[in-house]
Amino acid sequence: MLCSTAEKEKKKQKRMAKQLKIIPLSGLGEIGKNMTVLEYGRNQIIIDCGVKFPESDQYGIDLVLPSFDYVLENQETVRGIVLTHGHQDHIGGLPYLMQKLHVPIYGTALTIGMVERQLEEANVRGTDLQVIDDTTTLHLGPFRVSPFAVAHSIPASVGLVIDTPVGTVVHTGDYKLDETPTGGRTTDFKRLRELTPNGVLALLGDSTNADRPGRTPTEQIVAETLDRLFIEEKGQRIIIATFSSVLARLQEIMLLAHKHGRKVALTGRSLQQNIELARDLGYINVPKGLLVDIKNNVPDHELVILSTGSQGEPRSALNRMARGEHKQIQVHAGDSIIISGGTIPGNEEDVARMLNNLFARGANVIYGPLATVHVSGHGSREDMRLMLERVQPRFLIPVHGELRHQHLHARLAQQNGLTAEDVFILHNGSVWSSDGEKAWLEEDVPAADVYVDGTLVGEIGDMVMRDRERLAQDGFIVVYIPVDKRNKLSGEPHLVSRGFVRMDASGHLIDAARSQLKQELMKNGRNPGDITRETLQNFFYRETQSRPVILPTIIQV
Amino acid sequence: MLCSTAEKEKKKQKRMAKQLKIIPLSGLGEIGKNMTVLEYGRNQIIIDCGVKFPESDQYGIDLVLPSFDYVLENQETVRGIVLTHGHQDHIGGLPYLMQKLHVPIYGTALTIGMVERQLEEANVRGTDLQVIDDTTTLHLGPFRVSPFAVAHSIPASVGLVIDTPVGTVVHTGDYKLDETPTGGRTTDFKRLRELTPNGVLALLGDSTNADRPGRTPTEQIVAETLDRLFIEEKGQRIIIATFSSVLARLQEIMLLAHKHGRKVALTGRSLQQNIELARDLGYINVPKGLLVDIKNNVPDHELVILSTGSQGEPRSALNRMARGEHKQIQVHAGDSIIISGGTIPGNEEDVARMLNNLFARGANVIYGPLATVHVSGHGSREDMRLMLERVQPRFLIPVHGELRHQHLHARLAQQNGLTAEDVFILHNGSVWSSDGEKAWLEEDVPAADVYVDGTLVGEIGDMVMRDRERLAQDGFIVVYIPVDKRNKLSGEPHLVSRGFVRMDASGHLIDAARSQLKQELMKNGRNPGDITRETLQNFFYRETQSRPVILPTIIQV
Repeated sequence: MLCSTAEKEKKKQKRMAKQLKIIPLSGLGEIGKNMTVLEYGRNQIIIDCGVKFPESDQYGIDLVLPSFDYVLENQETVRGIVLTHGHQDHIGGLPYLMQKLHVPIYGTALTIGMVERQLEEANVRGTDLQVIDDTTTLHLGPFRVSPFAVAHSIPASVGLVIDTPVGTVVHTGDYKLDETPTGGRTTDFKRLRELTPNGVLALLGDSTNADRPGRTPTEQIVAETLDRLFIEEKGQRIIIATFSSVLARLQEIMLLAHKHGRKVALTGRSLQQNIELARDLGYINVPKGLLVDIKNNVPDHELVILSTGSQGEPRSALNRMARGEHKQIQVHAGDSIIISGGTIPGNEEDVARMLNNLFARGANVIYGPLATVHVSGHGSREDMRLMLERVQPRFLIPVHGELRHQHLHARLAQQNGLTAEDVFILHNGSVWSSDGEKAWLEEDVPAADVYVDGTLVGEIGDMVMRDRERLAQDGFIVVYIPVDKRNKLSGEPHLVSRGFVRMDASGHLIDAARSQLKQELMKNGRNPGDITRETLQNFFYRETQSRPVILPTIIQV
Repeated sequence: MLCSTAEKEKKKQKRMAKQLKIIPLSGLGEIGKNMTVLEYGRNQIIIDCGVKFPESDQYGIDLVLPSFDYVLENQETVRGIVLTHGHQDHIGGLPYLMQKLHVPIYGTALTIGMVERQLEEANVRGTDLQVIDDTTTLHLGPFRVSPFAVAHSIPASVGLVIDTPVGTVVHTGDYKLDETPTGGRTTDFKRLRELTPNGVLALLGDSTNADRPGRTPTEQIVAETLDRLFIEEKGQRIIIATFSSVLARLQEIMLLAHKHGRKVALTGRSLQQNIELARDLGYINVPKGLLVDIKNNVPDHELVILSTGSQGEPRSALNRMARGEHKQIQVHAGDSIIISGGTIPGNEEDVARMLNNLFARGANVIYGPLATVHVSGHGSREDMRLMLERVQPRFLIPVHGELRHQHLHARLAQQNGLTAEDVFILHNGSVWSSDGEKAWLEEDVPAADVYVDGTLVGEIGDMVMRDRERLAQDGFIVVYIPVDKRNKLSGEPHLVSRGFVRMDASGHLIDAARSQLKQELMKNGRNPGDITRETLQNFFYRETQSRPVILPTIIQV
């Protein structure tokens, strides 16, 4: 049968309209700042909107955000934002996004409580925040979204079952398969099965720990270790540092303190806020009278200080203690300090420095691998295999992980029945499409990282980052070149430097540079700026193997 | 009895002369660049002289050296340098030191071979290099130095027993207590006991792994894992990345390749040089015909490529392969790449990036913790406890480790019979003194790190480092201010920036800054440079929370 062009176009549009698109805007090829769009026709939903802390060569950057371009360009089609849990890498981008996008946000009570506080602090008002629970089903345009409970290091975490017109999508969120988690919230495979009677078209599965063999140990192990340490460190003050968002851990510690007859003092604003919020909402149980102000004179052996700073963050409470700059708390000989948090890659040097400073103050610091004071909140390879086995997806899209984790997750799936064609290694901005039968990739949408530096959002581009890298390596030299009206050198060039070499100790080098520069400027008729840049770049590279930024300044005198 | 002042002074000098001093010039409070001085009267010996790679916030620095000031000031008293083994953190400083110091260097044949090559490459000639072995006893002034074999990740490693007039000192060097090391060289407790019939005054013990419980696993485990991987990856090309200096590992790999019918191609100059040297000296056994040139067309399944780059070093062979920039080797789907080296703290991000790139090329990358493809060359807590038990020192000086490792080693000793007073936590430049009975600390000697940047040695001071840090964070702004002869603003100020913000995208910000600057310059009579610096620093901090370096330039026109 022959079709006219108009008919063809119509058919194409009809086919398009019947396609599901899954677009990870962020969180692939990286750990942190997750954000995924599901699109069907002129309908979008957004899952999570996180931030990420910069890598150590992202000089001067405070935060990294997903690109919001694609959702803002299509904002009239966005039906809502659904959140899996309240960690920063899943909600921390909302204060930036909600300044520009006006759609409802759905999440469990704790998650919404945390978002509410963050929006308030950022002065973003009027957002429609909707609390859901594990029995809810949301209808958002053509999408039916049903959360299911998952075990993770923060209470009220969920994965999502999303029914779409072409099939069911499962997004695991962050999860582990812990049979004995704090608070008893296990990953709810029963509900997941009930919600997917017709099978699963695509699984978006957490890949964070795809390079760890076996199962992730239960949180119970940490509780047991801490219990033992409370006995061993009897008589000493105990300071425990952990993430303020790992509320399950905070719950354990408070119960153990109570059991061992200690009071708990909190230091760090985020810790106080999170515990208050979780207690108000009934997510954690804080025994009456347990919490005390740090200024109360509780004897050392009856006190636990809970602190932020397990990553050695310069301004965190624990690091201020380590440097002797904490106003209320002086670390002293005999203190037992437990670092109950894994070191996030890139933070190793900061953590090491902090630990050294704490030891220097005479504290007994207990950290992994000395004792099992931390376990991951993400499932390992065997957990991921079990998830694949339960969900039996037609297609797998490994999410939440660097490229190697996505690949290792993909291979695991291939060892468990999927073919290479069934698994899609996507990147930020990839557009995965399916009609419910086949799946394919379409042209990418924009998804470049957005840098936040102080109050500057997006004003720091790649060029600025490259300049910073070069300045960090070799500093800069500003060269003042006095010229006459015919652009001829009319005096002594003058060199001013920062970050290159000690000018006082390097007189010979600078003198030699200036003298060569003068020679070149006098014999040559080209633009003195070009001559200066070229001459000095060559000179300093030859003499020092360094490449400072050269900034010539021609002054007509 | 009353003594005259002269007599007192004489007695003091006599007492001084009878004192042993142990002065760690480098390698305490850090892992890397070890260098220790032993001094008795006007006699010094130096143990090791290493370099260290910079930490990630030591911007632009290529290498960090120990301070040589103390030994150069006393160079007429230096009787010799004794080396424990050929790793860079024990010998890498020699090309710098031997330009200025002319004393013999003693080490086992492999160690001396490696030093010889490095001195040659640095064009340092005429150094007296002396080969010793495990049966030698050296007489260096009042010191009797006897090496004993230790197991470590490079052949021919030794610890040292040093008899001094006031007692015996044991320096372990780097060691592990591996009962089944490659090559069979175990730590020789028998000789150590024979060499110390009168007990040990002081133990300088390796603390590197003081935060790892238990024993360090034997190198045999790595050999077994690699053997299994050779079977599993049959049919594929195998690329193994490791340290070029971990010669024991290189030996294992070559024997396994031979066993599994593969040829070995080497990529990376240091790897080729080290293997050649170790083979020439008879330290490793390279089966005839095993080594092939990478350009030979050996079929993939019959080839092992041995490569440097396990730390993700940008210019290493493996990283060039990962980025597709290696001239001879293109990584392709099906390649099995084994990373047989632990990640040194600070290198995590570089390694992660390299692994991601290798996966992106379709390779199957096997790295810890996916398989035990690396074990440490240093003993863990239980090994350290055994060393303490065998040596039974009167005093312990934990060496080779960050402060936390020194403290944890100290505590271990205290759990095993030493008192807190018997253990000395020293830092670089500490002077430990003993008369054979008591021990105490004297005034420090200079021992500040020396930075190498390109060909610049020591010209980069703390001020330059602080400038680089600030430039890395926020870049700089040069401000040109045209003034008349009375120093009054006579035109438009002009701002040029690098590394701050995208000037094209930030016109409003720059305009506002300029306009405020003009106002301040016009109303104020002070030095225009000071006004500019102050006005712009405040303005940009208020507007952007950034602190770019401001460099005002006053131009009289």
